[in-house]
Amino acid sequence: MAPVVPRSGDAIFANVERVNAELFTLTYGAIVRQLLTDLEEVDEVNKQLDQMGYNIGIRHIDEFLAKSNVSRCVDFKETAEVIAKVGLKMFLGITATVTNWDVEGTTCSLILEDNPLVDFVELPDTCQGLYYCNILSGVVRGALEMVSMKTEVTWLRDMLRGDDAFELQLKLLKQVPEEYPYKDDE
Amino acid sequence: MAPVVPRSGDAIFANVERVNAELFTLTYGAIVRQLLTDLEEVDEVNKQLDQMGYNIGIRHIDEFLAKSNVSRCVDFKETAEVIAKVGLKMFLGITATVTNWDVEGTTCSLILEDNPLVDFVELPDTCQGLYYCNILSGVVRGALEMVSMKTEVTWLRDMLRGDDAFELQLKLLKQVPEEYPYKDDE
Repeated sequence: MAPVVPRSGDAIFANVERVNAELFTLTYGAIVRQLLTDLEEVDEVNKQLDQMGYNIGIRHIDEFLAKSNVSRCVDFKETAEVIAKVGLKMFLGITATVTNWDVEGTTCSLILEDNPLVDFVELPDTCQGLYYCNILSGVVRGALEMVSMKTEVTWLRDMLRGDDAFELQLKLLKQVPEEYPYKDDE
Repeated sequence: MAPVVPRSGDAIFANVERVNAELFTLTYGAIVRQLLTDLEEVDEVNKQLDQMGYNIGIRHIDEFLAKSNVSRCVDFKETAEVIAKVGLKMFLGITATVTNWDVEGTTCSLILEDNPLVDFVELPDTCQGLYYCNILSGVVRGALEMVSMKTEVTWLRDMLRGDDAFELQLKLLKQVPEEYPYKDDE
């Protein structure tokens, strides 16, 4: 049998079922508007978007592992690269650059090269504290938790808030050793 | 100049930006869950999903007209076919069959051949009155209103409710003659 090699983000993205990005963008915009109306507090909306993303991330990781042939990453550095080049490509059709590593190799930033979530979006003055893309940080956090990495994922820069890029910081808090619910010889 | 010919749904879909369908499906699921939590009443959720779809439809129509080269449809029959074969393809990557025309040619049904909104979805007993896909009926209603057709769009069959297909009924209520806010020679 030929060895299983990891597939590139492009190759996977070409083969998954897809929908129009504008439909996704407008649908996501509809969620955010709805939450702003229902929850009123911008901080609550930030939390809720992150939680929604988390719920998506913990489910998405299965499709990702099944379709990407990515095997266990040796360390957090490799994990960050896989998110930036394969994960984001597979789900949003974009990639990111990994940068700003700390000396311990446990904190880095993803600089997004594009961001389909924010097409057509401008924040009104009343929403200046909003992290509009918080669903994405939640997805990354949820997906990483399912491969035993507890992380904190935060937006350091956000173009909707006037910054010059979208920069998402990933901080590894704890790597939980995997626990098997059964023994191999059972 | 070569004449502008309408493009097929497949050709357009191949050229628009897209995102992973599963991401869209899970994101849509997150909206519905959120609305169920916030609004509590299933009827209110149905209305809200329809309204969200309507807001998306009235914006989506521009991209659709720009990218499809579809010119004015001669009648409602042609319009229904364009939605089924080009519109749905362009946005969701699916097509539908148009059927069940009434004698006046003002009511018909779209039978969806696939429905990416409902992958992984099962309705709990407490949500039996939910029209989970109501965003889609709203999108169609909103888009048609922008080309001067007032319609009523209703789910006649819904596989999440135990039916054998997804059947969306389009009923033309009124065709508003187009009004121009300015004269051609101004």
